[in-house]
Order: sequence, then structure tokens, then C-alpha cells
Amino acid sequence: MKTRYVHGYTTRENLRLQDQASTLVELLHADTFYPAGSRVLEAGCGVGAQTVTLAGKSPDAKIDAVDISSASVTEAKSTVEAAGFSNVHFHQGDIFNLPFRPESFDHIFVCFVLEHLPQPIEALTALKKLLKVEGTITVIEGDHGSTYFYPDNAAAHEAIRCQVELQKRSGGNADIGRQLFPLLNEAGFISVNVSPRMVYVDSSKPDMIAGFTKNTFIAMIEGVRETALEAGMITPAVFDEGVKGLYRTCETDGVFCYTFFKAVAGKT
Amino acid sequence: MKTRYVHGYTTRENLRLQDQASTLVELLHADTFYPAGSRVLEAGCGVGAQTVTLAGKSPDAKIDAVDISSASVTEAKSTVEAAGFSNVHFHQGDIFNLPFRPESFDHIFVCFVLEHLPQPIEALTALKKLLKVEGTITVIEGDHGSTYFYPDNAAAHEAIRCQVELQKRSGGNADIGRQLFPLLNEAGFISVNVSPRMVYVDSSKPDMIAGFTKNTFIAMIEGVRETALEAGMITPAVFDEGVKGLYRTCETDGVFCYTFFKAVAGKT
Repeated sequence: MKTRYVHGYTTRENLRLQDQASTLVELLHADTFYPAGSRVLEAGCGVGAQTVTLAGKSPDAKIDAVDISSASVTEAKSTVEAAGFSNVHFHQGDIFNLPFRPESFDHIFVCFVLEHLPQPIEALTALKKLLKVEGTITVIEGDHGSTYFYPDNAAAHEAIRCQVELQKRSGGNADIGRQLFPLLNEAGFISVNVSPRMVYVDSSKPDMIAGFTKNTFIAMIEGVRETALEAGMITPAVFDEGVKGLYRTCETDGVFCYTFFKAVAGKT
Repeated sequence: MKTRYVHGYTTRENLRLQDQASTLVELLHADTFYPAGSRVLEAGCGVGAQTVTLAGKSPDAKIDAVDISSASVTEAKSTVEAAGFSNVHFHQGDIFNLPFRPESFDHIFVCFVLEHLPQPIEALTALKKLLKVEGTITVIEGDHGSTYFYPDNAAAHEAIRCQVELQKRSGGNADIGRQLFPLLNEAGFISVNVSPRMVYVDSSKPDMIAGFTKNTFIAMIEGVRETALEAGMITPAVFDEGVKGLYRTCETDGVFCYTFFKAVAGKT
């Protein structure tokens, strides 16, 4: 299935995604590691931002990483090899039609993928076929509707809304994080356990201001400016005021909040 | 200072506040305990919902609990005595003019109080005078702007907005949780450390659905129905649809999210 993505396909985007990944590694991935010899599928590896962490935390697992974009796969392969890991095999492939036999994997890992898919339940159902009985699936997604900040700023919410709306028009769902529990249940997984991973940033955390608020979140919103303006979703004045409002949350008295959701589920 | 509260003064409200306190004890209070012999001030103890936890977790601390409402103080005293604790002294008093000498306390504890005050920074500044050098203040507040859920529901957000607006008209701020970092810094405290305490509820957590989503949050929103309608803030149809939308999040595929903020800070 071909999907137009709102983000993920430019050089600046690649840098942004790597930045996001390194800032959030502990929060999102600290509790994910797979035993020696286990077969792991990363479905939708993109440019390899999470693959490096996965490979490093489970050095003796045998990882297959796939993405629908062959350019991303090439980039991911080069990133993972540059990091010195040799336990990952890369393949270009469609999540709905992957070149693996049923019940090939002990574990499946899906991070920042469902948000882009018009049919997330069908994608999970397809992945479930590749999972062994008693295997696990781990799914991580953000949720833009979880964004709030101080000082509050109506234009900032308008600018964020543009990103959400553009992602929706591309068939995605930027608010999907909160839905992991029903999605995984609907796809037939069992023992679904969801834990929110909230990012709270104030000026006592300058690394998070740089790595998350500015270089991850605000960069993503700035990235949709031209598209949102072309689509007539917002005026340049309001968009720019909104971005200014987001930067305002990075000052000494500012606060920025965002929540990712991580789910682990099983198969019988 | 007299303050009209939006909630807190009816029997059903008291039950609701006790229910909230028992469901949230671990999440909010697990990391709060004070050494034997230390003097602790609970400013704004209300009906004693948190006082019981405080007294139980720090059985050898000497706690003074104050509230501006003598009816609440009576209720709190009876609750704490019924629970078998004898380490709390109760006083009726105004947070801006408490009957204690400067630097009387090793620790100060303030929970669900600032949200009701028109001048939270001034209140914190007044409390700081009562704190010993190298003492700590702990502040816990909710933030209604942190509320989101699945399925999303515009009428539900409208109903919540009524509560936020009514609290604002009473001089309070229902979105104050995210502001703890700037408020405490502004009041001159040092080493301000804020940790969000997110409540994530799905149908794998029936106790949280009952204790938090229904009996704490939805009960609070339902509690402002008449006042909101009298104020012409919303139509009965939209309000009731909103409450229905909130109950909808309690079904098998529903999800409800809310975040409290806890801050600990020091004094030099």
C-alpha cells in the first residue's frame, strides 16, 4: 500500500527524526530488549532512527527491519552499519504483504508507523499473522492532541491543528497514541498493556528544550508551513504567531507537555 | 482571604474527594514522607482527604493542618481521628495570615489548593516565610487542559470548559498544574522539580474507571451542570451530550487521560 506521508522524507526531516530518537531513547525504549536468538521484526523502520536503539539493546537478537520506501531502507542500513551493528537485515516491503512466512517472529516492533496508515487495524492484523503464538508486539505512537503548554497560545494550537489536518488528509491520524488499546484489541491481540510516556519540559531541562521541544516538535510544525498555507488552512500571520508561541514555551518560565503511548500485547 | 470554591462544599463532593484521594494515593503521594520529629504544615487541608495519607505515611512527623473553612476543618479532624492518627493538629486559618511564627516548618504540603486562589504566587510567598531554610515545599495540582480521551467528543470538551470557566470566575485556575514550575520560581523557591503524574485509564483498569473517570472526574463535571446552565454557558442538550461522551470513554474500547503535576522545591 502506498501512503503519502506528511513528514519523514527530506534531509532536514531525517536529521529531525534522528534528534528525536536520541532524546527520547530512555523514555520510549528503556524497557524494550529481546533475548539472544529471538527473531524480531521491525515493521516500518524508516531511516533507522529506532533501529539503532533496537539493535543496540538486543545485540543477540536477529532483527529484520522493513520499510515501504527503498530510499529509507538504504538510509537505515547505512545508519545501522555506521553504528557498528550487524544483527539487522533490511528489506524493502509493504507491511500488508511482507516476504515472511506466517509465525516467523518471536517479537514485532512498530514505532511511529500506524499514525501514517489509513487502515491501522488491518496493518496490525497482517503483522499478527507473522507473529508466533506467545510472541509479543510492541507499538509506540505519539498523540498531537496530548500537546499543551505554558503560556497557552491559541495560534500555536491552530498551527498544530494544521499538522494534524494534513496528516489526516494523507490518510493518517496524528492523535492515534491514545487509541493503541482499542486498536490492538480490535486486531485480536491479547493482554494489551498500554503505558503513556509523557514528555514534560521546563527550563530546568535545556537538553529536552533543544532536543524535543525545538528540534523535534516545533521543527515538525514548521515543516508543514508551506503546505498548510498552500492548502488555505491558516494565514501566514497566525501560523507564524503560533510558531512564535511554541518557541515562547522554551523560555525560562515556559512549560511544554507531550505524550507518547507504548503498548505491548500478546498472541494466542 | 475568602474564596468562593467551585467544588468542595457538599456531602456528595466530600465523598467524591475521598474517592479521588484513595484512587490516586499511590500515584500522587507514594514519594512523600517526612522524618520523625519534623514539623509539617498542610496548607488547605479541606475535608482531610490528603491529610489521612500524609499522617499515615509520616506517622512520627508533627503535622499542622489548616483550612480557611471551619466546617472543613471539623470534617478533616473527624476523618483523621477516625483513621486512628493522633499526629495532626487542626486549625482554621487564612493561608495569607496563618498563626505560626516565621520559619516554623521543616516541610510544607499543598494539594489541590492553588487552583482555587486568585493570587497563587502571593500564597506561595506567604508560605515560604513559614518554611525553615533548607526546608521543602510540595505542591500538587491537577490540570483540566490535560484531559483527552477516546472516542474524542466536542460536547465533552464543552462541558469541561464550563467547569474551567466557572472556576476562573471564582478567581481560580483549573489549568494550573502545568504552571507549578514558573509559579514556584516566581515565589522565590529554589531547585524546583516538577513531575507529571499522568492518569491513563482503559478498560483493563476497572478500578480506575470507577474511582477516577466516573467518581472523580465525571462527577466533578456533572456537579457544575446547574450553575453552568444558569450562567448560560451551554445548553442542557450539549452539556448532557458531553457528559454522555465522557461516560462513553468508560466502555470497553474507551480511553481517558488526565495529568496531575507534583512539584518539590527548596528554600535558601
